[in-house]
Amino acid sequence: MSGPSSTPLRVALLGCGTVGSAVLRLVGDQAGDLAARIGRPVEVVGIAVRRPAHHPDVPQHLLTTDAAALVRRDDVDLVVEVIGGIEPARSLMYAAFEAGKSVVSANKALLAEDGPGLHAAAAEAGVDLYYEAAVAGAIPLLRPLRESLAGDQLRRVVGIVNGTTNYILSRMAETGAGFAEALAEATELGYAEADPTADVDGFDAAAKAAILASLAFHTPVSSADVHREGISAVSATDVARAAEIGCTVKLLAICERVPNGAGDSVAVRVHPAMIPTTHPLASVGGAFNAVFVEAEAAGQLMFYGQGAGGEPTASAVLGDLVAVARNRVAGASGQGPTGYADLAVRPMAETPTRYHVSLDVADKPGVLAAVAQEFARQDVSISTVRQTGRGDAATLVIVTHSAPDAALSATIAALRDMPAVRGVTSVLRVEGLS
Amino acid sequence: MSGPSSTPLRVALLGCGTVGSAVLRLVGDQAGDLAARIGRPVEVVGIAVRRPAHHPDVPQHLLTTDAAALVRRDDVDLVVEVIGGIEPARSLMYAAFEAGKSVVSANKALLAEDGPGLHAAAAEAGVDLYYEAAVAGAIPLLRPLRESLAGDQLRRVVGIVNGTTNYILSRMAETGAGFAEALAEATELGYAEADPTADVDGFDAAAKAAILASLAFHTPVSSADVHREGISAVSATDVARAAEIGCTVKLLAICERVPNGAGDSVAVRVHPAMIPTTHPLASVGGAFNAVFVEAEAAGQLMFYGQGAGGEPTASAVLGDLVAVARNRVAGASGQGPTGYADLAVRPMAETPTRYHVSLDVADKPGVLAAVAQEFARQDVSISTVRQTGRGDAATLVIVTHSAPDAALSATIAALRDMPAVRGVTSVLRVEGLS
Repeated sequence: MSGPSSTPLRVALLGCGTVGSAVLRLVGDQAGDLAARIGRPVEVVGIAVRRPAHHPDVPQHLLTTDAAALVRRDDVDLVVEVIGGIEPARSLMYAAFEAGKSVVSANKALLAEDGPGLHAAAAEAGVDLYYEAAVAGAIPLLRPLRESLAGDQLRRVVGIVNGTTNYILSRMAETGAGFAEALAEATELGYAEADPTADVDGFDAAAKAAILASLAFHTPVSSADVHREGISAVSATDVARAAEIGCTVKLLAICERVPNGAGDSVAVRVHPAMIPTTHPLASVGGAFNAVFVEAEAAGQLMFYGQGAGGEPTASAVLGDLVAVARNRVAGASGQGPTGYADLAVRPMAETPTRYHVSLDVADKPGVLAAVAQEFARQDVSISTVRQTGRGDAATLVIVTHSAPDAALSATIAALRDMPAVRGVTSVLRVEGLS
Repeated sequence: MSGPSSTPLRVALLGCGTVGSAVLRLVGDQAGDLAARIGRPVEVVGIAVRRPAHHPDVPQHLLTTDAAALVRRDDVDLVVEVIGGIEPARSLMYAAFEAGKSVVSANKALLAEDGPGLHAAAAEAGVDLYYEAAVAGAIPLLRPLRESLAGDQLRRVVGIVNGTTNYILSRMAETGAGFAEALAEATELGYAEADPTADVDGFDAAAKAAILASLAFHTPVSSADVHREGISAVSATDVARAAEIGCTVKLLAICERVPNGAGDSVAVRVHPAMIPTTHPLASVGGAFNAVFVEAEAAGQLMFYGQGAGGEPTASAVLGDLVAVARNRVAGASGQGPTGYADLAVRPMAETPTRYHVSLDVADKPGVLAAVAQEFARQDVSISTVRQTGRGDAATLVIVTHSAPDAALSATIAALRDMPAVRGVTSVLRVEGLS
């Protein structure tokens, strides 16, 4: 590795919104520390934005609207991409690799859609592609998965990776409010965007799940491989039922390695689920993120921190920037992920899950037997049954053992058609129960 | 980076106790995965032990008692040191570096005593020295501190990094037992060693604190710089008093950057402290470890997992082994820590802390005024006072604001001499209270 030098490493910044401006500020504030840690000073030499007039606080001579020219400029060593979304980010990233430049990105959607293609292009060019900020903001997670646990076999990665939905579900639990009311409050307070679809319908979490699964299982997984359900169907009743059985409702991103005689497969899914309040993820409230990891040798691990926001995300971007810059100073490139295992992705229908079901039933002899028969017909074994109320208001609360998801949903459909069942009042998957 | 090759990377294993044999087993079990992740297969070609007869399960032809010859052997590419302790580990590590071999170590005592010397020798030889397993076992912690947070400014690192003392304190809280009784139980169950000094007196935690502080603040910190108090003086009364104010007692390793007009300094200390039960560290029970990090931009982070045990520690060793091996395959060396900041270590006497004090006092008019006067004399400001009981059995429970530790201990000494104070029944520092 070469010694300290005063020649700056020149950075092109693509995008200057919340994260971009925090990156810009930190590069300035930490100039001395960054130079010492990298061995050379860091300098932002260009900032691509769509509307320069919207960025009065940024040195105006750095601004350009021609991002494509910026990433190819000879005086640019590294590119930081914080535009987000698929295009133009994707084309710009490929252009940067072609021009021999490493890229640090916070772009979960793009990495989840085109991770293998981007990694191949970076490897071809002998440059780095790092994106710690793309999943769980400031929490150091991808580097530990990719490197620290590289000598272990991962079994499961279960995360709360979307702050907006976690805030909404936390408020529903605290106040008894329904989804619409809690969403309105989150929007008012700025925790939800004007169009909350990406968060509420689980698209954001699904992209992160794809990235986590790819790294955890050395297998290319894209957003399209992820079974996705959002939280808009979670009702105040679901949340109340969860509390009754010592659980809380969370939107989980679950990446599992499923053992199989013919060869393991991976199952990747995002959906709301009840988890016991004693589970380490249960107490992760508000806008925080946490990711729980189970590995063969390491056992249980958890990573916790702020999942979003300009400063936390910028911290992750800068960590990557230092790594990429140090690699460049050393004339090397870092460890990319490997996709060698290339495990099959198991469809949701075949993925083993557990259900919690609440039914309003007529309190007549034989109803429980008839209900139990529907579960048995699908080969679903019941873990617990609790009956509350009598007469007209009788309620059956059933928690199943693990069974293929398709068998469980077929059972629910059959229950809805039973004359003795007046209504299926709550259906949610259950995770983390022993 | 060169492509896959069938030439194995040859590993010398120094030590074959709990961790060493787990490493050996995992290298065998994960052979295919390791080869794919590294690009070359990994093979253990020699194992140095003191008494070969004690290792009947290990391939006998690999065993040697001559560790010094093993690390220099031409057919050894990498060295894994899991002997522990200062010598012969230190000499062997220097010999490995001289012979051009990278080292993966789990040796907290040695790294805490001679980190800068070892790192300098590794850098001189152009090889790697990794030791993720030395702190908090399986929890990926050092790599995140060293790399993921390299673009941020760390303020505090607070950890529960010793499982034995955490088990003992957890049991004291659960059962109301005193220290001696809880220690006896821990010994019986194998959570404490026959000679528990290293754990109970805080030496183990102090070594880990030194390593954490060095990485967090880019400043060489050795065990000798760490203020160290163990848990043997923690009484059942202390634990009960903690519960009364909504706290729990933990042995904490605390590394802080203390702002200072003339230049920041670092304060590194290990001692039992009361923390609020709502603090993320409070619920870390039994033999688990957790480390809480506060950074300027990233905000609050927590890392949680198993801190000891053969398999978890071996997982961390193997993660390092993969990193070192990949560096070797790529013909590069990895990022070492930097000591450029070289901040002064602030003595404990000058470090700001907060105290909880319980006093048995005579319930006479003027006693509280006299007690308060002793605090004021040392310029220690009081946060809360609670008086319970009346007459002979009156108790004053005082929590101070932050003040230099020396002022607090001087106050306690003065209180012990006051005629109106019949006894100082509990003194513990308090952390994490707002």
